[in-house]
This record gives sequence, C-alpha cells and structure tokens, in this order.
Amino acid sequence: MSKTKEFAKHLKELNIENMFENDFFLTWDKTDDEIEAVFTVAQALRDLRERNISTRIFDSGLAVSNFRDNSTRTRFSFASACNMLGLEVQDLDESKSQIAHGETVRETANMISFMADVIGIRDDMYIGKGHAYQKTVSDAVKEGYEDGVLEQKPTLVNLQCDIDHPTQCMSDILHVINEFGSVENLKGKKVAMTWAYSPSYGKPLSVPQGVVGLFTRFGMDVVLAHPKGYDIMPDVEEVAKKNAEKTGGSFTKTNDMKEAFKDADIVYPKSWASFSAMQERTELYAKGDMDGIDVLEKKLLKENAQHKDWECTEDMMSLTKGGKALYLHCLPADISKVSCKEGEVSDTVFDRYRKPLYKQASYKPYIIAAMIFLAKVKDPAKALEKLEEEANRRKKN
Amino acid sequence: MSKTKEFAKHLKELNIENMFENDFFLTWDKTDDEIEAVFTVAQALRDLRERNISTRIFDSGLAVSNFRDNSTRTRFSFASACNMLGLEVQDLDESKSQIAHGETVRETANMISFMADVIGIRDDMYIGKGHAYQKTVSDAVKEGYEDGVLEQKPTLVNLQCDIDHPTQCMSDILHVINEFGSVENLKGKKVAMTWAYSPSYGKPLSVPQGVVGLFTRFGMDVVLAHPKGYDIMPDVEEVAKKNAEKTGGSFTKTNDMKEAFKDADIVYPKSWASFSAMQERTELYAKGDMDGIDVLEKKLLKENAQHKDWECTEDMMSLTKGGKALYLHCLPADISKVSCKEGEVSDTVFDRYRKPLYKQASYKPYIIAAMIFLAKVKDPAKALEKLEEEANRRKKN
Amino acid sequence: MSKTKEFAKHLKELNIENMFENDFFLTWDKTDDEIEAVFTVAQALRDLRERNISTRIFDSGLAVSNFRDNSTRTRFSFASACNMLGLEVQDLDESKSQIAHGETVRETANMISFMADVIGIRDDMYIGKGHAYQKTVSDAVKEGYEDGVLEQKPTLVNLQCDIDHPTQCMSDILHVINEFGSVENLKGKKVAMTWAYSPSYGKPLSVPQGVVGLFTRFGMDVVLAHPKGYDIMPDVEEVAKKNAEKTGGSFTKTNDMKEAFKDADIVYPKSWASFSAMQERTELYAKGDMDGIDVLEKKLLKENAQHKDWECTEDMMSLTKGGKALYLHCLPADISKVSCKEGEVSDTVFDRYRKPLYKQASYKPYIIAAMIFLAKVKDPAKALEKLEEEANRRKKN
Repeated sequence: MSKTKEFAKHLKELNIENMFENDFFLTWDKTDDEIEAVFTVAQALRDLRERNISTRIFDSGLAVSNFRDNSTRTRFSFASACNMLGLEVQDLDESKSQIAHGETVRETANMISFMADVIGIRDDMYIGKGHAYQKTVSDAVKEGYEDGVLEQKPTLVNLQCDIDHPTQCMSDILHVINEFGSVENLKGKKVAMTWAYSPSYGKPLSVPQGVVGLFTRFGMDVVLAHPKGYDIMPDVEEVAKKNAEKTGGSFTKTNDMKEAFKDADIVYPKSWASFSAMQERTELYAKGDMDGIDVLEKKLLKENAQHKDWECTEDMMSLTKGGKALYLHCLPADISKVSCKEGEVSDTVFDRYRKPLYKQASYKPYIIAAMIFLAKVKDPAKALEKLEEEANRRKKN
Repeated sequence: MSKTKEFAKHLKELNIENMFENDFFLTWDKTDDEIEAVFTVAQALRDLRERNISTRIFDSGLAVSNFRDNSTRTRFSFASACNMLGLEVQDLDESKSQIAHGETVRETANMISFMADVIGIRDDMYIGKGHAYQKTVSDAVKEGYEDGVLEQKPTLVNLQCDIDHPTQCMSDILHVINEFGSVENLKGKKVAMTWAYSPSYGKPLSVPQGVVGLFTRFGMDVVLAHPKGYDIMPDVEEVAKKNAEKTGGSFTKTNDMKEAFKDADIVYPKSWASFSAMQERTELYAKGDMDGIDVLEKKLLKENAQHKDWECTEDMMSLTKGGKALYLHCLPADISKVSCKEGEVSDTVFDRYRKPLYKQASYKPYIIAAMIFLAKVKDPAKALEKLEEEANRRKKN
Repeated sequence: MSKTKEFAKHLKELNIENMFENDFFLTWDKTDDEIEAVFTVAQALRDLRERNISTRIFDSGLAVSNFRDNSTRTRFSFASACNMLGLEVQDLDESKSQIAHGETVRETANMISFMADVIGIRDDMYIGKGHAYQKTVSDAVKEGYEDGVLEQKPTLVNLQCDIDHPTQCMSDILHVINEFGSVENLKGKKVAMTWAYSPSYGKPLSVPQGVVGLFTRFGMDVVLAHPKGYDIMPDVEEVAKKNAEKTGGSFTKTNDMKEAFKDADIVYPKSWASFSAMQERTELYAKGDMDGIDVLEKKLLKENAQHKDWECTEDMMSLTKGGKALYLHCLPADISKVSCKEGEVSDTVFDRYRKPLYKQASYKPYIIAAMIFLAKVKDPAKALEKLEEEANRRKKN
C-alpha cells in the first residue's frame, strides 16, 4: 500500500467535517483531529509529488494573495501550493489598486473574489489589526456568497497575522515530528522558544505566539524566554497554559536564555518586538503621530541594544541536551558577521543547521496546500485515493 | 434542456460571423445581434460555472494585460475571465519594461504577443489618446500576424478607454436586464445618468459615455444630467441620439439633477471631469506644461466644489419611481461620511443598495470572457454545447 | 511525415544525453550537437503550435523568473515559453522580498524553488557578477535537491548575464539560418558585429560577446568592429578565435565600421559599453563610490559622443554585399530621429528591416522552450513524437 493510501486511510478515522468550506485563522481554533488532518494531507501531497503524480484538483480557478508586508518564502510557498492544486495566483497589489480611493475592505473582498477559490493574506504589522482584517474579509465573502454575488465562497488562509503564523508553525512542528520520528516521541521533550537579539526593530510576534500556542499541544515542555518587557500577548499565553495542562506537558516562562537552553531538545531563538510596544505603535499610527513613532523607535532600539547577549552561540548550544538540540528558525535569520554585525545566531551554529533549516521551510507549500485541500474537498480521503488511482503524471514526458 | 443549451440554441439565431477574430473597442461598433451574443454567452458561461462545469477552451495560452491606470475590479475581472477560459494573464508593467528606451507602440505590441491570444488594455487618462492607442496596438498585431511574426492574432478587449468602458457598461445593462426580468421590460423605462460631486478631480468620462451610448439601444428614456460645463464628448451624444431614434426611446439632457431623478426607474449618479477640461489637460501634458496643469487642477477643483449639492441623497431617491429606482454605480463610489466628507452618494443610500451593486459588478468577468469566447471560437454555439456535453468538472473532487 | 516527426527523427541522431537535468549558461559550454538540438526542438515546437497542437509537457509546475534589469521581450518570451510547456511563471521581485533583510543567495535560491522546474535569470549589469550569480543559484539548488529539500532540481536558463545572452543569440542565428535557407549556406558568409553610437551609456556587452561566440561556430567570417577602447572580454575573443579555426571561418577585429560593413552578408550594429569601463564601474559600485560613478559616467558619455559617425545609415548599408545585407538587432534599437536625435541606425534602414527584425525576435520563446524541454525530458525525440500523435488541441473549440 502506498504512503498516500495509508494517509487516506488514516484520514477516515479523523473527525474533520467542519473543515469543509471553512477558513484557517489560528491553530487553536482547530481540534487535534483537524491539526492532524493537515499534517496527513500535507504528507500525502508530498508523497504524490515525489512520485510525479499530479495533485491537481482544479481544472481552473484563482487564488488571490494579499501580502501587506514583504515576503519571499511565504509568497512562493503559497504560489507553489496553489499551482500544485491547479489554481492560478492573482496578487492583490494594493499600490496598483483603487483601494486608496475610498473602497472598503468589504467591497474589495467581494470585487477580487468573483472566481476566487482561496484568499491568502499576510497582515502582521499592527497589533490588533491583522487578524481583525482577515475576519472582515472572511465575513464579507461569506455574505457575498450567500447573496449570490460570488459563485463560490473563497477559503481564507492566514499567511501570518498579528496573532499567529499557522502555516509557519505547522511546518515547524511537522519538521520536528519527522526529525524525532513520530508525534509520540515529542512527549516530554523540552522546547526553548527564546527571544534573540537583532539590530532591526519591530519584528512580528506571530512566530513565538504561534509556536507556544501549537507546540504545547504535543505534550512538550515549552519554555518561553525573553528579556523583561518583551512579553507576548497574554491571551496566547493562556492558550499555551491550557494546552499544556490538557496534554501533560508544561508551559513556563523565564527571563534567562541559558535557563531555557539548558537540556533543551529543540531551540527556536528569534527576535520579536514587545507586545506593549507594538500596541503603542499601533495607537500612534492610528493617530498619525509620526513624531511619536520616531521617538518610540529610538527608545525601542536603545532598549533592544541592551540585550545583545541573547544570541544563539556555540556556548549556548553546548548547554542543550547533549549539545545537539534541534535548532529552528523561520528564516531569514539575522546571522552574526554574515547579515549583520551582531545578530540572533552565530555563523557557525547557523551553518551547521543549514540543511535541517531548509527542510523545515520545505514543508510550508504542502501545509498550505493541505489547508486548501481540506477546505475545498468534501471527502478528502476519497479525493487522495482517486489522485493515487488515476495517477496522472505531473511531468508528462 | 439546460440553460446553457438554451443559450446555445439562441446564439444560432444571431448573425455574429464578424465577431470571430475581431476586437471589442466600443459598443456602438457592434450590431444588436453582436451585443446580444455577448450577453448570451456571458450567461451561459455563468450557468456552466455555477454547475461546476469547466469552461476552458484553451489548454494553454497567454492573455496580456496592460493597465495604464490603477484598477482593482477590472484587473481581477480580466484575470477571472482569462482563467476560466484557460489563459494565463501576463501583465505588461510599463515600469519594468524597456519601453522608455525608445521602443514604439508598434514594436512592443508585437514583442509581447508571440503567444498572446488576448490583449486587454485600460488607457483612460487622456482624451484623444486611449482609443487611439488601442487601435494602434490592434493594427500592429494584425500586421505582425499577417507577416508571420505572430502565430495567432490576439484579440483586443477594451478594458476602458477615453471614449467607452464597454465591459463595465455591458455588465451594468446585463444587471439591469436581470433586475427587470427581460430586455422587453426595459422599453420606456427612465434612466438618469447623472453627474455627482466628488472631492477628487479628473475622473474619466468613459462610464457616462458608455452608458448613454449603450442604454439608448434598449428603447429606454435616457436623461443625461450634469452641471453646466460638464459636457461629455459630442460624438457620443450623437450616438445616443441616433440609438434613441431607432429604438423608440429618447435621449435628453438637463442641468438639473432633480429633473433627471424624477420618476426615474434607474439612477446612475457618478462624478466625471468635463470634456473640455480633459482636452485642455491633454494639451498641457503634450506640451509638458506642469505649471499649467497645476493651475488647471486648482481651477477645476474650485469649479467642482460649487456642485456639492449633486449628491444622491435619500431625498433625491424619494423623487424616483415609487422612491425605489435601481441605483447603479461602477464602484468604487465616493460615499459621504464614509470615504470622504461629501461625495457622490449618502451612506444610507449606498448601504441599502450594496447587494445589487455587488451583483452588478459580478457580471464583468463573464462579459469579458464572452467577448473573448466570441472572438476566438469559430462556432460559439457548438462550443457551448460541447462544454455542456463533455461536462468536465472545474473542481474535480 | 510532419515537420515535427522529421525533427524528432533528426534529434535521435544527436548526442545530447548531457542536456537532461542540466543548465544553460553560455553557448560555448555546449557541443555542436547540443546547439543543434535546441534549434531542432525550437522548430518542432513552433510547428506544433502553428498546427494548434498542444505542447504541454507539464500538468502543473512553476517557472521562477528573476529579472535584475528591466525587460520586455525577454520577460514575455520566457512567460510564453513556460506557458506553452504548462508551467506558471512566478516572478521573484526583489523589492517585494525579504532579501534585503540579510538573506543569502543560497538561501533564497532554495526558498523559491520548492516547486520550481525552471529558474530564468537576467543579471547583466555588472561585469564579473551576472554569470557568477547564476552559478551560485545553480549550485545552491543542486545542493538543495541532493539534500532532499527540493523535490526536483530546477533548470537554470540564462536570460542574459554579463558574458553571454544565449537565448537572444540563438534566436538571431536561427533567424539567419532560416533567411539563408540552411546551416550549410552560412559557410563563408561575412558577418559584421559592429559597435554603434547611442546617446545612452553602459549597455551590456553580452550581445556582441554572444554573437561572436556563437556565429563563429558556423564557418562564417565574423568581423568585430568598434572604436578604440570599446573592447569586449578577452576570454570571449579567445572563444571566437578557436571556434573560427575549428570551423574554417575567421574572426577578425577592426576599428573601422566601413571595413566591417564592406561586402558583409549580415550586419549587427549595436551600442555597448567597453569592458574596461564596465570593470571600473563594478569596482566603484563595490566600494559604494557614487561620486566616482558620476565622474566615470560623464567621462564615458563624453568619449561616447565622439563616435556619432558609427551609425547604420543607408550609405553604410550600400557598402554591404549587393547593398542588401541582412540587418540584425536585438531590439529595442536607438533609431535616429525616432527614439533619439542621433542613434544606432537611421530611420529608413530600420523601417525597411522591420518585418525581418520582428521575425528575428519571434524565435526567442521557442528557443527558451527548447532549452527547458531538453533539460526536463529524458527522451526528447520520443516526447515530440508523442505530442504529435496525441495531437491534443491547444485551442479546443
């Protein structure tokens, strides 16, 4: 029996009715079965692709992307995911559109969705805004569909918001599962999600939040470490705590990077801005107070510069379990002496983990494709079996 | 018999030989049968799409888009139309091209068309320029095809020029036909195509011109209303007059918005610049007289500001037939208190008509697809029947 | 027997095993059989396309384009080539990416290639940089494929580098072959690859270098003419010399445009910057010495202006064989009195050759498609035969 057939068989055991015609905003909106279904379909699609079997479930159709922040890997991952399912990406480039001319989000959402099967949105810059924007778009197209304006309800895929970065964090954990051999093997493993120094300022909180909100579901001991003042959203900490209680793992916090790294099986050192600073920034932007933003930026950069010792060095790595913890990063990393003078990680550590880091990233197209697949196909197990049986070649000759 | 079969049957009764391998510039270039054919095919394609039947008539091929002005809905409508027929959109972004390096329109037209089945162009900014540009492109690729440079002659679709906006106005009237039940029901209905105040300046004339040039073909009483000085092109007024004479409707003008709204069945209040001002602007641009343009802009905005009472308010709507005229707009509208302080339409009127407005917009992808279909397929009735019979699913699983 | 069947038959006689899964950087990396295979497949694909037979060998897949310099015809040629094979182009727009944030070329190359079958790169601005960049990308994705990061190794197609412009020059020579009737007829023909005046500064050297590096393989007498100081890369001159020796042609140089044009069968007058000046510019950029660049640019423009007599005029053309040499240009040309006051070619000469010039350009999509086809298909002859036999229609109705 092919891997894909096995994955399809497993899928039948999961309770995933609610995924059909539904969106993907936050991993903690989803049940354990639903999360597992995404991994299962992602791996089945990868297996089919590796055997040159077409995974197209669309003969035509559009996937709209809306990147409100720069992106390389997520942009290409989304394009890859859509292409392998048979959808063509059409980018909503707000600078070329008439949105500035007083068009509302609700209106634009409908106007771009006449043939859209999927909408992928990255909106991670302002606390309190990104997730809200995605919800508004989702509500608008749902209404448009019910009103007969749209022929289909496009599925929304969160390509990073202010709260979560589900396509990233699910790729991260799928990579971890494959590195450790199974979901079962994750139980009791120690994960250090730690802040790290970067000369830049204002990086989104969605990755650390997404990681603690997701990794705590696997019975792991998740430690969140950051300098004082670099807290993440309290609501997400609550999610992490509840997850840990339920799965027999733990969620703890510290302001000591070494404590987090000590005996860790997995480390994820990464820069982010503090929640309170990001809230302040959002308010200043709302008021149009550009001078205030300048002052804030200077203050934050000064604060930031006091924590250059939060770097993932060889010495730090030697504190981890057997000195061999799995190093994770969502990329691009700020590598000391390579991309900046002093950064998140030393050049030798980064270089040693280059191969697993690239593998970590390589799951993202499949995670995105799986999210779309599960939202668009009524019977995903049967659909996978059919792809396997028809075995249309992707490269035909 | 499915709707599509009925549409195909109807299509056979129409004289549409000239549409094959032809362009679509202005609605008044086309016969009544040809206009009807576009509606017929548009509705057949929508029927097929709604039943998840693939409408692909191309296995591969490019559709080139050239937006010389910002666009959201037309851009996505064009992308949708091309995708549903199996064509991939490639955008000619003039800022990324070498056109600035002395390349001629004739040359570029050929260079981008080696595999192009369609070219869609929006060029609506300068009076006397947009339509001329489209004609030059069309002539160039025709010559390229005859010279053996191009393997196929790409069809040109006017996505808005300085004279007409056929994909918009045909969507508008198809929406009206569906709201009123039939083409026959349009006879004798009163349409108010009126100017409305907007704080911006220099909006194209192509929508009001397209509307009076098309709606007068359906035996309607079309009233064009605007403040003194906001005339449209005289040539288009001539078209409207002749249409009205032929179909038993009427075309009249007034400088009184209330008079236009009185007992109207349909109202289309929308801002535009005056023909003479746009001519002046075009001349100033040609001379490179940027100071002159600044002076003109200030003068026009001052003039404009004197007509803030040209707003589609609840009071204005109450003058219409039973207070319930169908409100049309090409979107985005300048909504008072929402997108600007004082604008084209009051927020309560706009909100009440949101659902029909979105429906109005939803016809555009099908209108564009129908124009392409009729230009590319030798026997469109047979082609529709074949799509119905083969019934390939668009979403396969 | 169809042309395509004949081309397929011919292909079987060529030794082209090394082309499978390989890149295309420089024409002189390739054997004569390999060069001939590209022409053969290009013409077969054109024959199939002309008979409305689908040339899709991919059911889905991405082709990444990375244009580090502006482009119209190469951009559309690449899009056309990919589309006709069934690949969707995804552009790596570096301004929208996070590359500025310290990402390395090696990392980006992998991150954009998860589903990429092809990567097309134009990087022609800095001497010593473009080819090196392409090699780095190619090495990175090869490693990514071997490490299991990528499911397939994308093929790299050089869409112009600092050394060669193979898709252009192979289109040029294929045009010449068709104009002269056969490869055999090229023997002993005189080609004048000459510098020409343009008011702009700093045009890449890749076209003259590509031409002397390729045309010398066909037993032609290739003359490279330019004012003193406008030398091309010495390494490429060596390639040209060796080619000429091997094929019984010649490669000579002169600083006299008339001498080059005298009795020439083919003329290719085109502006370029001098190798030494471009080296100097690259060094100044590396140092960030913007003042130095300004000084250099002024110096070069002054030098440049001394050679306005290097223009392809009617008088110059009258010196050629029977006054009827085939005029070539990669377009866009700087046409005197049309795109600039004084330029590379007089308006009457250019206009007389417009049709062949457009034909010359029209081979490029097929050349690119052939390069991809030969790199992706294990048995290209069989694949062509299969396309012919299956005869799926490109335009279905």
